[in-house]
Amino acid sequence: MSEISMNDPNAQLERAAEEMRRAGIDALLLTPGADLFYLTGFEHGYAMERLLALVLRDDGSARWIVPAMNVPQVEPFATRGATVVGWSDTDGYRKPLRGALAGAGKIAFDDEARAAFLLDVMSVAKTAAVRRASKVLRAMRIRKTEEEIRALRAVAAQVDATIGDAIALCCPGSSEMEVDQSLRAALLKRDPLSSVAFTIVASGPNSALPHHESGRRWLERGDVVILDFGTRSSIARSRDGVTYQSQLFGYQSDITVTCCVREARYAEAPQVYRVVWEAQQAALAKAKPGVTCEELDRAARSVIESAGYGPYFTHRTGHGLGLQGHEPPYLRTGNSDELEEGMVFTIEPGIYLPGRFGVRLEVVAVATAHGAELLNAPSAKELPVAD
Amino acid sequence: MSEISMNDPNAQLERAAEEMRRAGIDALLLTPGADLFYLTGFEHGYAMERLLALVLRDDGSARWIVPAMNVPQVEPFATRGATVVGWSDTDGYRKPLRGALAGAGKIAFDDEARAAFLLDVMSVAKTAAVRRASKVLRAMRIRKTEEEIRALRAVAAQVDATIGDAIALCCPGSSEMEVDQSLRAALLKRDPLSSVAFTIVASGPNSALPHHESGRRWLERGDVVILDFGTRSSIARSRDGVTYQSQLFGYQSDITVTCCVREARYAEAPQVYRVVWEAQQAALAKAKPGVTCEELDRAARSVIESAGYGPYFTHRTGHGLGLQGHEPPYLRTGNSDELEEGMVFTIEPGIYLPGRFGVRLEVVAVATAHGAELLNAPSAKELPVAD
Repeated sequence: MSEISMNDPNAQLERAAEEMRRAGIDALLLTPGADLFYLTGFEHGYAMERLLALVLRDDGSARWIVPAMNVPQVEPFATRGATVVGWSDTDGYRKPLRGALAGAGKIAFDDEARAAFLLDVMSVAKTAAVRRASKVLRAMRIRKTEEEIRALRAVAAQVDATIGDAIALCCPGSSEMEVDQSLRAALLKRDPLSSVAFTIVASGPNSALPHHESGRRWLERGDVVILDFGTRSSIARSRDGVTYQSQLFGYQSDITVTCCVREARYAEAPQVYRVVWEAQQAALAKAKPGVTCEELDRAARSVIESAGYGPYFTHRTGHGLGLQGHEPPYLRTGNSDELEEGMVFTIEPGIYLPGRFGVRLEVVAVATAHGAELLNAPSAKELPVAD
Repeated sequence: MSEISMNDPNAQLERAAEEMRRAGIDALLLTPGADLFYLTGFEHGYAMERLLALVLRDDGSARWIVPAMNVPQVEPFATRGATVVGWSDTDGYRKPLRGALAGAGKIAFDDEARAAFLLDVMSVAKTAAVRRASKVLRAMRIRKTEEEIRALRAVAAQVDATIGDAIALCCPGSSEMEVDQSLRAALLKRDPLSSVAFTIVASGPNSALPHHESGRRWLERGDVVILDFGTRSSIARSRDGVTYQSQLFGYQSDITVTCCVREARYAEAPQVYRVVWEAQQAALAKAKPGVTCEELDRAARSVIESAGYGPYFTHRTGHGLGLQGHEPPYLRTGNSDELEEGMVFTIEPGIYLPGRFGVRLEVVAVATAHGAELLNAPSAKELPVAD
């Protein structure tokens, strides 16, 4: 469990209002999710079709629009001077929403919120232009503070410690689902207060599908297996004397290892593995402040192209990691954003040979003044064998 | 595990296109979620910021816009004549999105999709009017077929069978989180292939918060405890010879029981319980085709108001249930939609006395020609005591 003392929410909202003024945004609307949690520490798992939102205006004033029954849960998180407006199932939320957005010409709306809420916003603020909230929050969240990096390092250590278990689970006769469930159990055993963000066990020909969902296939001797898994740390925070333990938004881990069951069926597999490993090293070697995201992607991709596998590397080289499993920076062709100190990102090249096998190797790194520093243990240099 | 043989997806898409023509919608865009699963059987858990969408036009033609790496997963679900367009991280999805929406004056967009995708749609189809996809899908999904009702009944039986365990877990000295975790385990023991949709354990003063999240409070003798929990059945479906087991979208259960730990601290509690029980009976007695949603709400609310607790019933009387935990019909003041045969809904009145305790009783029922038929066991008539 990470004891995170994130900044005072009053200061966070003031920073957000400053970003809004810089971007010419009049009102920012966030619903429960990573952005709202980042700013206020509030999270909630059961909001669904009932709007629960924070509306921040560019003068720093804040108004929460909350289902009547959730008001007591929101109140401890309301910052200095913020108002909490409860709405009933009978009256609905359109009126308080209209009030909170009155006069706003440019609204930044939560990227991850339900689209139906955005349609509501557009119907009560018909003339307003709508932008992504990430325009405001991205600048705040993309460079991690020292304590955020500590939390990311701690949760990375949890998945690192489970790599051996994960590989050992890859026995002939186990199904992907069985390996998946045992892997989840092994992760939770390392930290019972964490939660599993996701697990992918892709065996044999399924390893050629980058986002395979663990299924009922039985592992066989000779299979290549991709194991991609991540967890979310538990965050304990205090507000008004109440210790509040986050189950939903903690800092995340994300790692991918590739192994083979007893031996590799295809003689090409150890060599493909080595190409992916070298592509990963090339990107890591290049990762320092000032290098662009597409240059990092290029560094990994060049190695794979030179080895003749270019068409089989079908995704970007990596993505940012923090309170969300995928967040900026995105390391892909066409992204000329520069890496900055404190950015945390994955490097995860892969080669996927349809119908045969795939290899992906993923680690998480933070950009420091001196280059990339791994938060995970380094990927194994040779294809690991599960005996 | 329910073996569901839902309609042929070709026929489902034709029905949807018919609804679109009726509503004057030119294009319908759905992302992974209940609506897309309902129409096509496809679901996917890792889409996140990469657009994976089905665009259905009102002539019944279908186009999938899919991250390149997910194409093989989507193909088995593509219906007759549908095209699957893969996009790469380098090129992005804006161009295929523009193509799929070309000429559409009125677009219906997935209510539950990420708002950022809706902003993308609006930027590539600037002049189009956008409506909620539920306008189209609601009419299709709101009346359940016999096989859907069978699935809902089976999953309701799972939570019914766990009521005794749930109450027995409410011992002095256990924390809400501990009760919550044991309850989850008990649910999965009844059906290891199901998944837990949600659990709420709200004890003592927390029971006065309708959507409390289970926390670290220790249960004490005298507490009233609200236990609200639901599961999702596993659905096995076959497509092209591959058995596909849904982990995300099954038919859901949802039940609430209220009990006290050894005894009730407040003499008023058994009486409040009785009022809530009578309110539930009043709504159930009234539930038949042709009655409006608000009349059902009124039936329950009148009982609570007459007993003097009107201001403490702070939410609607119920909601629909199916592939989603909350879906239409919503039983609330102001909703003049009529109940129809085959609609499945919860009846869950509650009384919440701030700082003291709350009582909520929830069952699921289906509207038949003869009135409401319970899918759950009936709520206990007297406040159950956990010994």
